[in-house]
Amino acid sequence: MATQVNPPRGMRDFLPEEKARRERVLAVIRDTYRAHGFDEIETPVVEDSSRLHAGLGGDNEKLAFGILKRGLTAEDLAAASDPLDLADLGLRFDLTVPLTRFYATHRAALPSVFRAIQLGSVWRAERPQKGRYRQFVQCDIDIIGDATGLAEAELLVASLATFDALGLDGVVMRVNDRRILTGLLDHLGFPAESHAGVLVTLDKLDRVGPDGVVAELEANGAAPDAVAAVRAYLTRPQTREFIPYGERQIRTALPDGFDSPAVADLVALGENVAGALAAGPGGAASARDLPLLFDPFLVRGMGYYTGAIFEAMHPSAGYSLGGGGRYDGMIGRFLGTEVPATGFSIGFERIVDLVTLRDDEASDAVVLLYDSDADSARLVALKAELIAQGRRVRLERAPRNVKGLLDSLAAFGFRQFAHVGDAAAATDLTFKPLG
Amino acid sequence: MATQVNPPRGMRDFLPEEKARRERVLAVIRDTYRAHGFDEIETPVVEDSSRLHAGLGGDNEKLAFGILKRGLTAEDLAAASDPLDLADLGLRFDLTVPLTRFYATHRAALPSVFRAIQLGSVWRAERPQKGRYRQFVQCDIDIIGDATGLAEAELLVASLATFDALGLDGVVMRVNDRRILTGLLDHLGFPAESHAGVLVTLDKLDRVGPDGVVAELEANGAAPDAVAAVRAYLTRPQTREFIPYGERQIRTALPDGFDSPAVADLVALGENVAGALAAGPGGAASARDLPLLFDPFLVRGMGYYTGAIFEAMHPSAGYSLGGGGRYDGMIGRFLGTEVPATGFSIGFERIVDLVTLRDDEASDAVVLLYDSDADSARLVALKAELIAQGRRVRLERAPRNVKGLLDSLAAFGFRQFAHVGDAAAATDLTFKPLG
Repeated sequence: MATQVNPPRGMRDFLPEEKARRERVLAVIRDTYRAHGFDEIETPVVEDSSRLHAGLGGDNEKLAFGILKRGLTAEDLAAASDPLDLADLGLRFDLTVPLTRFYATHRAALPSVFRAIQLGSVWRAERPQKGRYRQFVQCDIDIIGDATGLAEAELLVASLATFDALGLDGVVMRVNDRRILTGLLDHLGFPAESHAGVLVTLDKLDRVGPDGVVAELEANGAAPDAVAAVRAYLTRPQTREFIPYGERQIRTALPDGFDSPAVADLVALGENVAGALAAGPGGAASARDLPLLFDPFLVRGMGYYTGAIFEAMHPSAGYSLGGGGRYDGMIGRFLGTEVPATGFSIGFERIVDLVTLRDDEASDAVVLLYDSDADSARLVALKAELIAQGRRVRLERAPRNVKGLLDSLAAFGFRQFAHVGDAAAATDLTFKPLG
Repeated sequence: MATQVNPPRGMRDFLPEEKARRERVLAVIRDTYRAHGFDEIETPVVEDSSRLHAGLGGDNEKLAFGILKRGLTAEDLAAASDPLDLADLGLRFDLTVPLTRFYATHRAALPSVFRAIQLGSVWRAERPQKGRYRQFVQCDIDIIGDATGLAEAELLVASLATFDALGLDGVVMRVNDRRILTGLLDHLGFPAESHAGVLVTLDKLDRVGPDGVVAELEANGAAPDAVAAVRAYLTRPQTREFIPYGERQIRTALPDGFDSPAVADLVALGENVAGALAAGPGGAASARDLPLLFDPFLVRGMGYYTGAIFEAMHPSAGYSLGGGGRYDGMIGRFLGTEVPATGFSIGFERIVDLVTLRDDEASDAVVLLYDSDADSARLVALKAELIAQGRRVRLERAPRNVKGLLDSLAAFGFRQFAHVGDAAAATDLTFKPLG
């Protein structure tokens, strides 16, 4: 019996405590980006199958759950040679494909620069394993229609403010630019047609180290001169972890004689972010501790990036908490025109367990313990009186094991309790702390 | 091209204004029920196909979207005789089947009386038509594990408070009890085995009137004596619309000589609700205008109700805004034991357009218009300064048609604007009202 009542494989139920924490985190993300001028939108969780398999989703397209057409006959089944023949809809595997479709549908009704928030679940038919779920929440924030560096600045400032509002102090953004990466590969001697493959290898630097990168480049048949240049560059005394953000530092971190228009853009981005932090709540001190690092080896996996790229790091986590960048080619795909776009995605499932937001309601949340012979009219009246005072109220019939009950209620976010006894009004109740 | 970019048939995108309104309504529902001691939970949007087709969902089971098994081969397709053979998961068509499964999974971790909130989308493969969507939001609130009338009282008080918090003044609950209906059918001369069918007919009373009900009963072959008794009862001068809630009125509304233990329970429920309203914000005046009506013909469609049933009516809507009741047999189905349960479902899609909640942020939301040569560092710093003051801020490059832009921003919830010009700090800005 036990296995029959579990949620579907790789998917999760959320019990009250965890659900409340998740909703608090989502509310902070929503509210912070809204304050920064972003608007939340929502699309259906399913899209037409043909759209999900149109080549925008990379490897994730293979993980799309397909939804059976309605009204299929036995003949339809017999005639089908591929399961996809039987699906006309599918569950979205990311929020980017739906955003691209949404923008094509509604462009005329949207501002010329559209700042979108999407908070929603996505589904992937992954092999279930620890930390990999088949349904999980993504938080995507995008600025569509702004080709200037103002977009990157607004996105980074809003994202840093969000991590801050979540209590994740000490988040640092690693920043790079795809144009720098491309220029660097040119400079080091990799022919243009090899760049995509070399970037895939370079993206593994955090995991495999310089030796691993060099070995993989060699195994893939890269020219010895280029490999030697990479080795020399990757093993310079100045390592990637310690490149503070400023023009001199960025130029020093790049090979002598290398230049790219992206360098000036990144320098300006740093100045913009510093200015915003100085004008914000933390004032000048925030600006001095500019939470940006230049990382010439930051790649970000997806192939669609065209300009600045970022990744959020936190000292307490060995993984990135989010990332994004400029991807000018993608949004306009269905429109047949290029639409500039910059996006950031917060790794919701990664941060939700790191965040310890205070539950604002908890201090006012009370449990009323009653005996089985208590008059229900009096109970609901007492409850109503306390709710009218702004409290959260839970009625509980006193069980034999009162302590066990009270402990569990503390986990549900309650902080005080009172025995109803003969109380006729809230002033007759004596509240004691819970747990 | 145009049709290619629409959302899937029968499903909707939500643009910023509508999405914000929907989230405000959901937040009020969540917060009010939480204050009344309910806990929000979440289950996956898909359940195992076998569970969705286990007979708990009534006619809705046929409307479940099926999700293709992974890894199907051409042989699997050829061997399948029914599309359901190819689906191992499906999209949920309601929140009740998932709740039943959730409770069976997690019972040991839940309070002995579990008050659940579920706010989530459901999917039904309905023929698309006006007002019928294939993805829509349901709001279900359930009290599981309480067999006493306290559950009905808490549920009604919390639901009335929610409608009130949504600004839907004047909501009235029609109340009945399945035991009264059953007793009434006995009393009027219908044999027990005909009750289910007669209730289906009686449920149409609002639409077809007494004559329509009588005609359908005759067409279905009901005994002439029973039909005559129904006709006499339905056409008494005292109509269903005007039965205020109290013991005398309830007894008067029922046939002479009829009694049921449910009558005393309904009377007590009214007293409990009145007491809670008197103790709440509105005080004694709220209690005098008890927003309950007894309706001996209220049926509520679903077959699973076993006791009290309710339906929320509002003067501005020609349809119910929500409903529910006691359904003691269902939650325990997977546990092999009876678990008492009471539930209420708010018709979210029906109320969301009736609600005109004030947007608390709007008065602080400002637009900063800038010219194309403005320095972006100054723009993001001004924006940060205003956000630090608690405002919502949108940067907009001034277009040729400023008025058109400002009008559209008013719809997005902004209330003031300022030209950035040469302003170096927020104090240099002059705000004007928008629209």
